[in-house]
Amino acid sequence: MSNNNEIIKNMQNHLDNLTKPIGSLGELEEIALKLAAVQNKIPPQISKRASLIFAADHGITEENVSMYPKEVTAQMVLNFLGGGAAINVLSKHCGSDVFIVDSGVDADFDDERVINKKVAKGTKNFLKENAMTENELAQCLAHGKELARMIKEKGYDLVSLGDMGIGNTSTAAAMLIAGGFASGDIIDRGTGIDDERLQHKIKVINDAIAQHNPGNNPMKIMQTLGGFEICTMTGLILELKGTGIVCVLDGFPVTAAGYMAYMMDDTVLDYCFAGHKSKVKGHQVVLDKMGLKPLIDLNMRLGEGTGAVIGGFLIDLSAKIAGEMASFASAGVSTSKDEEENY
Amino acid sequence: MSNNNEIIKNMQNHLDNLTKPIGSLGELEEIALKLAAVQNKIPPQISKRASLIFAADHGITEENVSMYPKEVTAQMVLNFLGGGAAINVLSKHCGSDVFIVDSGVDADFDDERVINKKVAKGTKNFLKENAMTENELAQCLAHGKELARMIKEKGYDLVSLGDMGIGNTSTAAAMLIAGGFASGDIIDRGTGIDDERLQHKIKVINDAIAQHNPGNNPMKIMQTLGGFEICTMTGLILELKGTGIVCVLDGFPVTAAGYMAYMMDDTVLDYCFAGHKSKVKGHQVVLDKMGLKPLIDLNMRLGEGTGAVIGGFLIDLSAKIAGEMASFASAGVSTSKDEEENY
Repeated sequence: MSNNNEIIKNMQNHLDNLTKPIGSLGELEEIALKLAAVQNKIPPQISKRASLIFAADHGITEENVSMYPKEVTAQMVLNFLGGGAAINVLSKHCGSDVFIVDSGVDADFDDERVINKKVAKGTKNFLKENAMTENELAQCLAHGKELARMIKEKGYDLVSLGDMGIGNTSTAAAMLIAGGFASGDIIDRGTGIDDERLQHKIKVINDAIAQHNPGNNPMKIMQTLGGFEICTMTGLILELKGTGIVCVLDGFPVTAAGYMAYMMDDTVLDYCFAGHKSKVKGHQVVLDKMGLKPLIDLNMRLGEGTGAVIGGFLIDLSAKIAGEMASFASAGVSTSKDEEENY
Repeated sequence: MSNNNEIIKNMQNHLDNLTKPIGSLGELEEIALKLAAVQNKIPPQISKRASLIFAADHGITEENVSMYPKEVTAQMVLNFLGGGAAINVLSKHCGSDVFIVDSGVDADFDDERVINKKVAKGTKNFLKENAMTENELAQCLAHGKELARMIKEKGYDLVSLGDMGIGNTSTAAAMLIAGGFASGDIIDRGTGIDDERLQHKIKVINDAIAQHNPGNNPMKIMQTLGGFEICTMTGLILELKGTGIVCVLDGFPVTAAGYMAYMMDDTVLDYCFAGHKSKVKGHQVVLDKMGLKPLIDLNMRLGEGTGAVIGGFLIDLSAKIAGEMASFASAGVSTSKDEEENY
């Protein structure tokens, strides 16, 4: 939360004068307070929302950590373009515009709707070498900055982030464990993964961290273990600082990007929201560490920004409540003698 | 859940062929299964949603159980008409049409937008006499049926219910405790209620139940302790059976109406959803007893249908997912060897 105590106090006063018992809209009121602080505006206002989907491939898929063939990353980009993926359907009905970013897919897209921020055709296998070079990491962060500026120039008030990349849950897990989380808190069986594969995945990740030994240094973590889409999101999140634009995190890989940004500058919490709680085991642990409360919990574990776009819709509702409800005075409704009593 | 196993099996198959890991949309998929069973249709479809707000006054307010003056009920009806209440703002942005029903407000509304189903100008004080006569209860249930038919005739697929009535949390608590719940599980301090008032509220409710002794009979409970808006909603919920229309419950008073319907016919669970979990203490206990999982939990406690309308939006999203996503085959996306693996 911002230190802007004056605006929060005035926004609280604004909310308390709306025709409802004080505090009775719960989290919707908390969100409105945070929005007012981010935008420095009472009431806050959200006019345009964007869903950004970042796609990339991951060298670690060579180690057989995922049961989906890595070709699915590119196939899903084509599905995003065709409008048939979950994030397309949810964005359409939640009123958010979709942007597809190629951060490093191992395929060429001959479609100008794909925003080309390809660093390379997939990271290297981080069990054998650094996932990317210093220069490639710098490119990711620069791309993130460019995208933040694009979002601002296009007039969006809110951006929800999503990921698509076969192997990126392993990548995100490695980054977070390197970043200080216990591997037992982060890596889980998922659904349908047998013991042997689970043990294999844990061994791959722990061996990789031991080899690279990046310490608690987010730049080192990103370079040695990261993914192009994750690091690009980290750059975007950092660049949103001070813009008044709200950022909504999605599930595990996007939250890993958020956590890297948080390690570099914890004021990202002022403008970041947790869109949802994913079913992936480690997600809640990371959100707890950041002090972010997920807006919905629907047992989803799809990625693509599907939780974030619904969370972004709820944030928009909060702004609409703050901006469009009548006050007790304007509506001629009596107030309670007891401030916090329900109707 | 309906016994319609064939349609659920086919709907599951439909969901499993959409371009996402199996089950990865969590509750959104569970909702779609229930919708398919209610509508007997694959994929299910929601084209129009309605928010119904039921307003009435309560004689029990004479016992000083609420700190809001009872005039607020009528004032809020005017606020609904003016579009300035939370339910107006949320319904507008969630895409649901608002209908205001006067089930028994102690005021006259000279506005044809108010659906006049007034049984009387408020119930009697149930600490001193029956809340309503047998005939008045019959009117409530008949009004509920008429409204269910109106909703069907207007082509709505989903109706979310809301309440407005000073004193109706006490009424709902009395109904639920009479219906078998422990008073300690149902009545809470709320926020800002002092010990003395809490004890007073508990005593009023327990004394009333002891006097009327309605047993486990929902008709007796409704007549002796009920509210006009609550009993009208009970009639509506029962009448939706077999229509294919989905009903979304809101917080404590609406859920009391749902519980009365459930006591009379537990197949209401086939087409009822819990829109949200209210901050009111007893709400979760009643939902648990009915086996309904709330779709959102935003610490709201406003009523008016504010939780239900957001829940209704999520149900609509679920139908859109089922109806608009591409299949693996149509999008040319490879499937996993391991059925339940994430991307």
